[in-house]
Amino acid sequence: MSKQFDVLVVGGGPGGYIAAIRAAQLGFSVACCESNPYADAKGEPRLGGTCLNVGCIPSKALLHTSHLFEEAAHGFAAQGIGVGTPTIDVAKMVGRKDGIVKQLTTGIKGLFKKNKVTLLNGHGAFVGRKGGAGSEVWQLKVGDAVVEAKQVIVATGSRARHLPGVPVDNEIVCDNIGALDIASVPKKLAVIGAGVIGLEMGSVWRRLGAEVTLLEALPEFLSLADVDVAREAAKLFAKQGLQIVTGIEIGDVKVSQKGVSIDYTDQDGQEQKLDADRLIVSIGRIPNTEGLDADKVGLKLTERGQIEVDAHCRTNLPGVWAVGDVVAGPMLAHKAMEEGVMVAEIMAGQAGHCNFDTIPWVIYTSPEIAWVGRTEQQLKADGVAFKVGKIPFAANGRALGMGDASGFVKMLACATSDRILGVHIIGANASELISEAVVAMEFGAAAEDLARICHAHPTLSEVVHEAALACDKRPLHF
Amino acid sequence: MSKQFDVLVVGGGPGGYIAAIRAAQLGFSVACCESNPYADAKGEPRLGGTCLNVGCIPSKALLHTSHLFEEAAHGFAAQGIGVGTPTIDVAKMVGRKDGIVKQLTTGIKGLFKKNKVTLLNGHGAFVGRKGGAGSEVWQLKVGDAVVEAKQVIVATGSRARHLPGVPVDNEIVCDNIGALDIASVPKKLAVIGAGVIGLEMGSVWRRLGAEVTLLEALPEFLSLADVDVAREAAKLFAKQGLQIVTGIEIGDVKVSQKGVSIDYTDQDGQEQKLDADRLIVSIGRIPNTEGLDADKVGLKLTERGQIEVDAHCRTNLPGVWAVGDVVAGPMLAHKAMEEGVMVAEIMAGQAGHCNFDTIPWVIYTSPEIAWVGRTEQQLKADGVAFKVGKIPFAANGRALGMGDASGFVKMLACATSDRILGVHIIGANASELISEAVVAMEFGAAAEDLARICHAHPTLSEVVHEAALACDKRPLHF
Repeated sequence: MSKQFDVLVVGGGPGGYIAAIRAAQLGFSVACCESNPYADAKGEPRLGGTCLNVGCIPSKALLHTSHLFEEAAHGFAAQGIGVGTPTIDVAKMVGRKDGIVKQLTTGIKGLFKKNKVTLLNGHGAFVGRKGGAGSEVWQLKVGDAVVEAKQVIVATGSRARHLPGVPVDNEIVCDNIGALDIASVPKKLAVIGAGVIGLEMGSVWRRLGAEVTLLEALPEFLSLADVDVAREAAKLFAKQGLQIVTGIEIGDVKVSQKGVSIDYTDQDGQEQKLDADRLIVSIGRIPNTEGLDADKVGLKLTERGQIEVDAHCRTNLPGVWAVGDVVAGPMLAHKAMEEGVMVAEIMAGQAGHCNFDTIPWVIYTSPEIAWVGRTEQQLKADGVAFKVGKIPFAANGRALGMGDASGFVKMLACATSDRILGVHIIGANASELISEAVVAMEFGAAAEDLARICHAHPTLSEVVHEAALACDKRPLHF
Repeated sequence: MSKQFDVLVVGGGPGGYIAAIRAAQLGFSVACCESNPYADAKGEPRLGGTCLNVGCIPSKALLHTSHLFEEAAHGFAAQGIGVGTPTIDVAKMVGRKDGIVKQLTTGIKGLFKKNKVTLLNGHGAFVGRKGGAGSEVWQLKVGDAVVEAKQVIVATGSRARHLPGVPVDNEIVCDNIGALDIASVPKKLAVIGAGVIGLEMGSVWRRLGAEVTLLEALPEFLSLADVDVAREAAKLFAKQGLQIVTGIEIGDVKVSQKGVSIDYTDQDGQEQKLDADRLIVSIGRIPNTEGLDADKVGLKLTERGQIEVDAHCRTNLPGVWAVGDVVAGPMLAHKAMEEGVMVAEIMAGQAGHCNFDTIPWVIYTSPEIAWVGRTEQQLKADGVAFKVGKIPFAANGRALGMGDASGFVKMLACATSDRILGVHIIGANASELISEAVVAMEFGAAAEDLARICHAHPTLSEVVHEAALACDKRPLHF
């Protein structure tokens, strides 16, 4: 006998678990299947997907510890705090991280119980369809059972792209998974790919003492970010000792028990070699569609291997939706969650909507980088006339008090309407500061609106305020 | 010969220096006089008032250092960071703080120069008026000179209230000034007044090793804050070892070279005695109107000794305004700045306005406390029907990663319109999280608006998001 649900969510990451919970809140009978290899004590796979298990959450735990370690090693003396030379117990650091991951993944099981979502242990794959047009029922195999559902939400996420011919053993050669569990601080660490994951993981191990080199194929560093932010980041990271080499082409990568040797061509066409104890490969991520048996039901994929969806995450099949990393758009947990909520609400007849123009980006380096909306280079490419308000943290009392006054806030507003088009922050706590910019943009705020809103003193958010004032060339503190 | 200006600002604190800069930006010839005792190398008084010299800014520097010290002493081991027993060099800590104060106060002089504001060295006092109705010119004595101005903005700020009969020497008995310069960690520290300053300064010295007792006359702890926040704060501070005794009445305070002995009556009417090495008196602040010679021109004061103003900071005299701590309302730097901008813009014929309903409050304890709008008890008193969305940080991935998941976000929304009426935060980084709530409230946002706005993951701001969802009883992560 097959199990029947109104909705089956395939994958329990941020897009999937949120879609499942929201659909259940709206009155549907909902199951969510998950088959990742991170089994808990009961042998059940862990919920939370890449984000919770081997992504956002564990990386932030390591970033926090390594940040404090660096403060202790290099920042405390100037403040009068004496601690000698700090040591790091990597196993303990990693153990704390594992504890947080366990707490949160277990927590999502609790949320499933509270919201009456059925958790199915197993990989989900399409088997077929029943019913005529308008009353389709989809059949999927989950483990040994067949599950039937009127609506299916595919949220299978993504996995790390590996280098061809360079197997990831997560000992010497790591992807995002192994990078979080390195057993001791490597003397030399190579990172291929200077994107978000490469920068965050490179930062963790550099702070703890590794000599870190990032090799990036693109000629521009952080080309997704605003030009000024990317330039400032390159300068600050170089000062910290992160060596970033852009415009390279990877050649032979030789892996031994003792380390790696990477041949690459630099941007001047010169052959170079980088030897390291370990290598982190962070060259992008691949949507997980294999094993879904999409072809059995005719579920359409894009040329890039993503599931093809419209702006409301509808696939080409009626009642089949897809959200998160497996569809187009930034591979961000909160983008997946937004899509999950939207799909559940549309299924329930509500006006589900996802504003892709106000999805914030965050990179948890030190200083942090966060932005929302368009960059200066995008506005130029789009031919939009804009004003710039750019204010450094250097004159901000809170930043000075914290001993970290690097970076700036750059606000871009329409030259004619004054509407905020983008906010770009590099600085302490940028990840939290971006939220008021997102709220402002969702309300269609003009720079003058933010300029006229009171900001608590002394806070870092005053720099956002000043950037808004600077759009009108009237900053008060700069 | 007298000096003549369009605008004379009396006092160079946050309300004054901002009013002066904004007025100058709007085309007025502006002077600002200041006479505080913190002279710089040129013998000029320092700008920035209480806030920069002996308030917000230096306290945040000490709070940051002492927070890191406490992390090192009690938080590092669990993260795998080994530092032994940390030591504190108080002189170095205070020296760093002094450096920040100097940098910022000097910075404001630079802003005056940039914006062409004339700085006058001296105390400002009314002498008289010239001209008929509608063309008044005010005469003030500043040092030895007489200054004439068509518009005067009084921004003389406030000073600490002292205990009758207990002189403040800023050695054994300190107010906000001495509390920032204590030369060594006292063994026992008594604080009279458990308000913002008492809590912040008490926290600094407790973290560094002092045994701290706060005596509060009011029966309720933190009665200005939301009831739930006050209750949570009392619990968390007690756990940290801050001893807070409410509902007391101070009796004899004996001060010797070695310390203080404080007699007080507890809330059960029992006589008690508290001995301490040092005492911080933080029982409120008095508006600075003495020496202004208000009576010479008939400038009206309130019964509480503030300068009487309307909602646009107009006094009873044409062309005379007053802003900041010297008028009614919360004694907050950013409230003073808002008023300063408003007055300058009204003088220039613009529609200057200050929304007193969206002035945020912050207490920089650990965890931090911040709020905007009305508290639950105020809404009840006002007879407003409201919904509550309250979400703890305990389940937030970022908070767990930071090792500080205490506290919560509590959102209050109108039961019928869903409009946000108040947001109350106790938790890490509350000071920065409050900014999106202020922006939302300025836009008249409903809780549902915030619920439908994407929040970056993983950030603490997600708890604000969840609190908004919880107003509709549909949190996703709780």
